Amino acid sequence: MTLPKHQQAAVKQGQEPKCEVTTIDVPQLGPGQILCKINYSGICGTDKAFIFNEFKMKETAKGISGHEGAGTVVGVAEDVKDLWKEGDRVGVKWVTSICQRCEFCTNGQDELHCPKQRNSGNSVPGTFQEYCVTDARYATRIPNGVKDEEAGPIMCGGVTAYVACKRSQVRPGQWIVVPGAGGGLGHLAIQYAKTMGMRVIAIDGGAEKQKLCLELGAEHFIDFTTTKDIPAEIMHITTYGAHGVVVTAASREGYATAPMLLRPGGTVVAVGIPTDMTIVAGAPPALLCMKRLNIVGTVTGTLKDVDEALDFTARGLVRPVLTHGTLHDLNELIAKLKDGKIAGRAVVKIAA
Amino acid sequence: MTLPKHQQAAVKQGQEPKCEVTTIDVPQLGPGQILCKINYSGICGTDKAFIFNEFKMKETAKGISGHEGAGTVVGVAEDVKDLWKEGDRVGVKWVTSICQRCEFCTNGQDELHCPKQRNSGNSVPGTFQEYCVTDARYATRIPNGVKDEEAGPIMCGGVTAYVACKRSQVRPGQWIVVPGAGGGLGHLAIQYAKTMGMRVIAIDGGAEKQKLCLELGAEHFIDFTTTKDIPAEIMHITTYGAHGVVVTAASREGYATAPMLLRPGGTVVAVGIPTDMTIVAGAPPALLCMKRLNIVGTVTGTLKDVDEALDFTARGLVRPVLTHGTLHDLNELIAKLKDGKIAGRAVVKIAA
Amino acid sequence: MTLPKHQQAAVKQGQEPKCEVTTIDVPQLGPGQILCKINYSGICGTDKAFIFNEFKMKETAKGISGHEGAGTVVGVAEDVKDLWKEGDRVGVKWVTSICQRCEFCTNGQDELHCPKQRNSGNSVPGTFQEYCVTDARYATRIPNGVKDEEAGPIMCGGVTAYVACKRSQVRPGQWIVVPGAGGGLGHLAIQYAKTMGMRVIAIDGGAEKQKLCLELGAEHFIDFTTTKDIPAEIMHITTYGAHGVVVTAASREGYATAPMLLRPGGTVVAVGIPTDMTIVAGAPPALLCMKRLNIVGTVTGTLKDVDEALDFTARGLVRPVLTHGTLHDLNELIAKLKDGKIAGRAVVKIAA
Amino acid sequence: MTLPKHQQAAVKQGQEPKCEVTTIDVPQLGPGQILCKINYSGICGTDKAFIFNEFKMKETAKGISGHEGAGTVVGVAEDVKDLWKEGDRVGVKWVTSICQRCEFCTNGQDELHCPKQRNSGNSVPGTFQEYCVTDARYATRIPNGVKDEEAGPIMCGGVTAYVACKRSQVRPGQWIVVPGAGGGLGHLAIQYAKTMGMRVIAIDGGAEKQKLCLELGAEHFIDFTTTKDIPAEIMHITTYGAHGVVVTAASREGYATAPMLLRPGGTVVAVGIPTDMTIVAGAPPALLCMKRLNIVGTVTGTLKDVDEALDFTARGLVRPVLTHGTLHDLNELIAKLKDGKIAGRAVVKIAA
Repeated sequence: MTLPKHQQAAVKQGQEPKCEVTTIDVPQLGPGQILCKINYSGICGTDKAFIFNEFKMKETAKGISGHEGAGTVVGVAEDVKDLWKEGDRVGVKWVTSICQRCEFCTNGQDELHCPKQRNSGNSVPGTFQEYCVTDARYATRIPNGVKDEEAGPIMCGGVTAYVACKRSQVRPGQWIVVPGAGGGLGHLAIQYAKTMGMRVIAIDGGAEKQKLCLELGAEHFIDFTTTKDIPAEIMHITTYGAHGVVVTAASREGYATAPMLLRPGGTVVAVGIPTDMTIVAGAPPALLCMKRLNIVGTVTGTLKDVDEALDFTARGLVRPVLTHGTLHDLNELIAKLKDGKIAGRAVVKIAA
Repeated sequence: MTLPKHQQAAVKQGQEPKCEVTTIDVPQLGPGQILCKINYSGICGTDKAFIFNEFKMKETAKGISGHEGAGTVVGVAEDVKDLWKEGDRVGVKWVTSICQRCEFCTNGQDELHCPKQRNSGNSVPGTFQEYCVTDARYATRIPNGVKDEEAGPIMCGGVTAYVACKRSQVRPGQWIVVPGAGGGLGHLAIQYAKTMGMRVIAIDGGAEKQKLCLELGAEHFIDFTTTKDIPAEIMHITTYGAHGVVVTAASREGYATAPMLLRPGGTVVAVGIPTDMTIVAGAPPALLCMKRLNIVGTVTGTLKDVDEALDFTARGLVRPVLTHGTLHDLNELIAKLKDGKIAGRAVVKIAA
Repeated sequence: MTLPKHQQAAVKQGQEPKCEVTTIDVPQLGPGQILCKINYSGICGTDKAFIFNEFKMKETAKGISGHEGAGTVVGVAEDVKDLWKEGDRVGVKWVTSICQRCEFCTNGQDELHCPKQRNSGNSVPGTFQEYCVTDARYATRIPNGVKDEEAGPIMCGGVTAYVACKRSQVRPGQWIVVPGAGGGLGHLAIQYAKTMGMRVIAIDGGAEKQKLCLELGAEHFIDFTTTKDIPAEIMHITTYGAHGVVVTAASREGYATAPMLLRPGGTVVAVGIPTDMTIVAGAPPALLCMKRLNIVGTVTGTLKDVDEALDFTARGLVRPVLTHGTLHDLNELIAKLKDGKIAGRAVVKIAA
Repeated sequence: MTLPKHQQAAVKQGQEPKCEVTTIDVPQLGPGQILCKINYSGICGTDKAFIFNEFKMKETAKGISGHEGAGTVVGVAEDVKDLWKEGDRVGVKWVTSICQRCEFCTNGQDELHCPKQRNSGNSVPGTFQEYCVTDARYATRIPNGVKDEEAGPIMCGGVTAYVACKRSQVRPGQWIVVPGAGGGLGHLAIQYAKTMGMRVIAIDGGAEKQKLCLELGAEHFIDFTTTKDIPAEIMHITTYGAHGVVVTAASREGYATAPMLLRPGGTVVAVGIPTDMTIVAGAPPALLCMKRLNIVGTVTGTLKDVDEALDFTARGLVRPVLTHGTLHDLNELIAKLKDGKIAGRAVVKIAA
């Protein structure tokens, strides 16, 4: 295969919260890397945050965000030819490489907290470009039965929802509450929770969201635009409270309410990350102790978690609901995402 | 044995935060109950809170607080004569009875959250009296090798410290931080943590506390009166942060700092319960998620936990440091406790 | 309600492996007990074993077996009137009472191993009679949505299958193998495993069993009458082996094969109890260690487990397949059970 | 540093169960490798098994056994110069490399079961030579405070004992039984168990072993040469049985007895691997189920486990008891090991 020298990429312009589709060089392979032709990339809330400078982090990604990429391998460095070959289907994630050697990489639980990790769209250029290089040892294989447009959103949104369900410790037959259930993460959390045997109570606003949530498997829908006392409604359904709550919304209200929805021993899983650092995921000790609650954080998923998350899609049990566009629609889609106007997950078609 | 009709008890007087030693009737045995002659009772922060009306809860304990009682069985109801006999050594706890039938009593983890529980010194008269009745099925046997004056403080303070260490999920060889390490709960937490193989970093103020903490087994002592940047000091000792923090102090500062002391995957255990409900045990989601932290609550311990906690004392591994008094010293000891002036745990000698 | 003085019961006759339907006294209520009118009782392999003296245990059940009873409360002792009232629906289990006080009752995991437990049809008369007394504190409430004829078999067969699935530690999306999948326990294990998100491989013999297993949710059926190399077939389906195997059959062959079906980290759950004590659930250490396998035992379920098992039936997710009869059919049904001729679970209708 | 071209190695001679000290080439570095100068190597039971052809496995190690090596890095391949530098202290283990990519490498628990693993002294030449090459990514750093002669035996014997204690699930204050407690693995298991807060019952034969075990921290010693009924003795000490048993001996008797020493919920950890495949680690289901036992296998430890195991030695809590020799003593030491005559662990000094 002959590779082009130049490609199209959506590049952030200075401090402006905008990307412009620009012609840039196709990146060169380094040792341990593969070159991926990106077919689709999902758009995550974090992309929006980076483009809007919300985290005030220094990035070295040359202005190219995106970390939910799915496509095909078109180049393989010499030293990793045993791992990949051209034509393999490949996914690019938020964490693109880890050291595989530190305490966190080797303790079986915390590889995502490796201090030497690299991140797509943050420390290295992301997936909003036709061709990107990524670490061969940490890239994901896309299995049969999963389309690229689905695989992209699983790379971050899907696996985040899946791991949040796992971290909730909710067992089959027990209740999990998903505020923001009609959104990008929420609509995936409903499906993962259901396939794990949990009983789902969806919270969101409006008839369209209600229809979607119930179709995806929620047993109950609570419309926050019309329900005055959500904790009371949860108690009414569950008698003593839910066993878990997955907080995908990054709002003060969401975090303050979550522990009030739980029964003794229950767990709040924090997923949404507000940029306002005065918002706290937690509970007054009187509540936390008297109910033996747990408040836990989670972020994306490990290499193995992503394989598991994809497998549920390959088996037809979890399907992202998609809003489509191209690189040229990126600014508009991100603006809609900022306004909470995206149904399900947005993906952009990238390479031809 | 002939029992007296009357006894001495420390009874709270109206809204005043004071108890008066008064002569009252010895209580009558009901079905399922035993009558205990209380030899010693520990004084817990919760006793102070009740006497000072800090929780604004309605109590039906006839003004008699106390839930760290240790003594001897002097009467047994007919229907529980297979469980206890006169002369048995017995401990009375915060939770004095549970229904043994609800979801929380039977799920193997949450009996302390039984909605029908009764509480010593709150819903039933407590241990600041010479004779108290308690539920035979939930009273604790005191093993050989544990003195009554030690057993009392284990009933609540000891078991709370022990269960907090368990809830921390810190494994042998890992780091646990104990702020307030020289206090009633803290000095017991040091000892339980050490006997469980953890490495302890004690935080408290002053040379006397330092001496106590190091003697009890802490590897490091951080004096908060002289250390400017406690998180930095913890990082210096542990490289990446501690694996767990047990927050015994009920302060805003304590809860705000705790998550900053942890490495990825670490756990804050909330024990101290502030009456100010705006104080939250938690962390900003950016920290909670990026480090995969856990914030968990705990309160006293189950019947089995108390047996385990006592066993460590019977084996000589955990010994409460005691400040002694009698029922007549109660007001003074509680005042000192309120001012943080009690070294270790206060106990009062009750029955002659 | 006026209760009769006499009733019909199936009573074992001396050493003969037969029961005879006999008129005996209706039992009297003791303290802590309820009197139950048994509507249906399931027939468990253990009933067969007792009637055939296979365990050579001394029993004090007056020859009346049965421990899968479902019916109605018709009498309540004074001291437990707060727990039950006449007309309540009730289930009677293998374990009818525990001490609620020993290490095993209070450690949150081992109440079924209480040394003071009483057992229906073994230490106390069982459910093959119209009226039986049982301990109020350990009897089970039957929820709406579960018929008596279903509730009976859940009391032992259902909950055993459910707990075996839990003990397997197989997670949603992973593989579990159920040898004897068409039998009394097996056909329930398929359903519980499926509702817990597991992927089920059923092993049994014949087209009828195949049809049943696939209808109940198994993804694959292996016919042991025509498959030469079962481990090879499992490897073919699962690549590295299954994550769990639930051994319901009490055969030497079944236990010898089970560990060979597993991938590293997998678990054999032993359920079937052979009377031949030379049959061992285990594996050569070379296999056990090199694959880090787990071999675990399980027996029925706790009070809470039974509630959970029933809840899945109430929700319509797990339904026992039943073979019906009356007390007069007991000998014949037990003979068929001995010959492996019962499809699903046998139940007998008892009280009119 | 100038490296020699030739070195001394103990090389197995054909089918003879003997090694001969021979002059061979110093191996060449390949990509991803480091060259280690081996200062000390421990002698494991598996070395004896290979030299005596007990496993009938095909090996490709050029006749050079040994997998408990400790020494110094003297060469580093270009592509791993960021990981190691000359002069670093290094340990070589049984597993020398894993793929870091398969399900087992990434599931956080089973890297030791990677199908592509390489093994020192089996698939690649081992540590009974002055210089060996090993995979840079899976080699272990030896921390300060651990001598090479101690670090060697920790690489396999130590970490195996440590992980066996972890796999036992025995909690602080609970009982663990160590048959063969005076041997190479056993004497380390006593120390790890003690430092993890467990109470140890040592089983072995003779006054010398008794003295050693009690000095290392066992609370009880049972002499199997004079004790008729070991299970009865364990019940006498523990009332209901131990919580765990670590079976280091590879004997039929040891595996048959182990489950009889346990209380309900207890765990047998299989470590010793008999070459006789009719020996089974397990229990009759009647025992396994009625006591809810667990039988689990374990083999060495992960990269992280080894770091943890070494840390206990660095802190002075676990110290191998050593029998010293040189490469020329290897045959004699292995003969003694075969006869159970080695006290503690044997190590050979290798490079000058």
